[in-house]
Amino acid sequence: MTFIPLFFLAFLLQFCSSLSLFHHHPLDPLTPTELNQIKLIVDKSSIGSLPNLTYHFVDLEEPEKIDVLSWLSSKKTNKNAQFRRAKVVVRAGGETRELVVDLASGSIESNRVYTGHGYPPFTFNEFVKASRLPFQYPKFMKSIVNRGLNMSEVSCVPLTVGWYGEKVTKRTLRITCYYRGGSVNVYARPIEGISLFIDVDSMRITNYIDRFRVPVPKAEGTDFRSNKKIDPVTCNNATEKGFEIEGNNVKWGNWKFHVGFNARAGTVISTASIFDARMKKYRQVLYRGHVSETFVPYMDPESEWYFRTFMDIGEFGFGRSASTLQPLIDCPANAEYMDGYVAGADGQAMKMEKVICIFQRDAGDIAWRHAEINNPGTVIRSGQPEKTLVVRMIATVGNYDYVLDWEFKQFGTIKIGV
Amino acid sequence: MTFIPLFFLAFLLQFCSSLSLFHHHPLDPLTPTELNQIKLIVDKSSIGSLPNLTYHFVDLEEPEKIDVLSWLSSKKTNKNAQFRRAKVVVRAGGETRELVVDLASGSIESNRVYTGHGYPPFTFNEFVKASRLPFQYPKFMKSIVNRGLNMSEVSCVPLTVGWYGEKVTKRTLRITCYYRGGSVNVYARPIEGISLFIDVDSMRITNYIDRFRVPVPKAEGTDFRSNKKIDPVTCNNATEKGFEIEGNNVKWGNWKFHVGFNARAGTVISTASIFDARMKKYRQVLYRGHVSETFVPYMDPESEWYFRTFMDIGEFGFGRSASTLQPLIDCPANAEYMDGYVAGADGQAMKMEKVICIFQRDAGDIAWRHAEINNPGTVIRSGQPEKTLVVRMIATVGNYDYVLDWEFKQFGTIKIGV
Repeated sequence: MTFIPLFFLAFLLQFCSSLSLFHHHPLDPLTPTELNQIKLIVDKSSIGSLPNLTYHFVDLEEPEKIDVLSWLSSKKTNKNAQFRRAKVVVRAGGETRELVVDLASGSIESNRVYTGHGYPPFTFNEFVKASRLPFQYPKFMKSIVNRGLNMSEVSCVPLTVGWYGEKVTKRTLRITCYYRGGSVNVYARPIEGISLFIDVDSMRITNYIDRFRVPVPKAEGTDFRSNKKIDPVTCNNATEKGFEIEGNNVKWGNWKFHVGFNARAGTVISTASIFDARMKKYRQVLYRGHVSETFVPYMDPESEWYFRTFMDIGEFGFGRSASTLQPLIDCPANAEYMDGYVAGADGQAMKMEKVICIFQRDAGDIAWRHAEINNPGTVIRSGQPEKTLVVRMIATVGNYDYVLDWEFKQFGTIKIGV
Repeated sequence: MTFIPLFFLAFLLQFCSSLSLFHHHPLDPLTPTELNQIKLIVDKSSIGSLPNLTYHFVDLEEPEKIDVLSWLSSKKTNKNAQFRRAKVVVRAGGETRELVVDLASGSIESNRVYTGHGYPPFTFNEFVKASRLPFQYPKFMKSIVNRGLNMSEVSCVPLTVGWYGEKVTKRTLRITCYYRGGSVNVYARPIEGISLFIDVDSMRITNYIDRFRVPVPKAEGTDFRSNKKIDPVTCNNATEKGFEIEGNNVKWGNWKFHVGFNARAGTVISTASIFDARMKKYRQVLYRGHVSETFVPYMDPESEWYFRTFMDIGEFGFGRSASTLQPLIDCPANAEYMDGYVAGADGQAMKMEKVICIFQRDAGDIAWRHAEINNPGTVIRSGQPEKTLVVRMIATVGNYDYVLDWEFKQFGTIKIGV
């Protein structure tokens, strides 16, 4: 009587264990458990007792390429635990620290105070706190009243300020405000003429200028919400499933690759290989790929606009700004979704739902075709419809929605579109 | 007892008549009936008694733009017969003639001998006859035997020869031959070193040079026929039909346009308009559009290659070379097809099956989307998936398959891809 349950349990354990082994890849993004473990390790260390500890960036400290490739070509009976390290950027006691945390041993391997130029990206907490300051600031409230506007309809947005060769810089933001007043399209109605300077370390307004007044653009016609019924298109393959996702590993057609996610880059595609039917083995195509930066200089020399020289990835983060994807609008009916995890300002894991979708695209294109009329007595036509696999993420940074597509093609091409 | 059938018949006649009225558009391509009527008119005229009458080009003589637009904006109770004229290019008695034929009156309105430079495109008959000449030509047969090849496996292809400033030119072709010998991929195995010159008017070989021998590329691995099972993808819109075709008029979303076809250009898109929801009327976007020419100079100065400077549209014709589209390979399951008609060398209408397909594309792209986080207490996400309408034709000229797509987008763009 006890034999069967035990056997069953053993089978179940082995099944789960082999599954989790299959899922693991040395470049897997940090799991929520790992993120929280990292916070615990840092909080319990000497750094944890420093004042004002904030987490600005937590990501996998990637193993060497040679180790990853060797692991991939091995039988993978060894777990990937040996590779689990994290790079962590914190601010504590007014200093920036770069740490390497080893998850297997639960220790901080490296702890370095950064003394170079610049600062880590602001935390979302800092952005939010800064954007609230104008609402308690009498001069600003007076400016709003003087414009005949209603404070309860104002939205303020924190902006990074660029760098213009200063030797010494502080952690600074500027605030720009918008007038909703009957529109949900916040960026459509800027309140121009006002400059608001924030010192982030002390979290206070250090300078305020109300230089001129111009009318706020009208609200009519700015509502971007679609009232159009979305007509779901379901594409059914008769016999072909399309693709397989196991953990972060994706297999599709002759391709296999790994999909990661981090706070800065968002989607990271790694170890993409295509099966070479002639050589009967996979050929490595791309070891690792992600967007590095987007630079958005507005090029307007006015004092209210010159500083808008955004690095949307380095300053805000495509991963942190990843938008929850809307099924049937952002991705078609046949898409599968992945969640992402980032560390909050306190180091706690934060789940970001449906930040990546993966779908097979059947756009009605032709992979190849030929009609040959020069064979006696017959016209030979042949060809194949094109199918591709798309890995999509959308980063919404301010008023911009960056649709980032990695498209894998049957014949070995990877096409990247933003 | 007789009342009902008569009434029914009257209803039916009126229904058909209103249908055919709706179908008509001043830019409709010539119907097979019209093509044959044109042949009859020309054959019965004085031109018909000239020796060696051949038809090189027959197409609608388009009415003036102002008349077309006026007809379109009228109630269209008048038939479009007033507009039915054809431009016809024939060779007869060793001369090129450009005719304008009026279909309503059944007369030749204009009959002009062309005395300028150049000649009309060769007829397919001429191409075919020329390509057969080497098989009766002893010097060529000897060249083939000397190469250890088998005449029964040779395919010959006629090539136009370009123009290099000569004051006087003749109607000339050169012939290039290929060795099938176990491959259906004719162009993969050229028999190099041989030059064959054809005078088309006398249809004989005027010069022959066998300059050198090189091996024919091997047959292995050249078979282009796919043995891959085509997996039909059916995309079903839940509630939306997609598009309507009435004759040559297409309506899709806020677009309406006319799809024509002729021997030279293939697809001709005309009177494309988009509905302006604010102005509550259609806005004209494109009066008429088609490809004008493709120029394919091989840039190899060798005497066997320098003359390959093809004008694939002017010399061969995208319409005449339009490939019958393969459902599920060249166009997806939701495509509808149009046939085309051209005049043969004898002026008779020739049907070309399924030369154009039209389908709604749901590629999983996003027409627009935005996520707005700056409204208090809510994230607003909205957007629309992108749907487009594709009008496709494929011209196979020699070893080239030109996929020609006209893609209409919801927001007023027309994207043309070759």
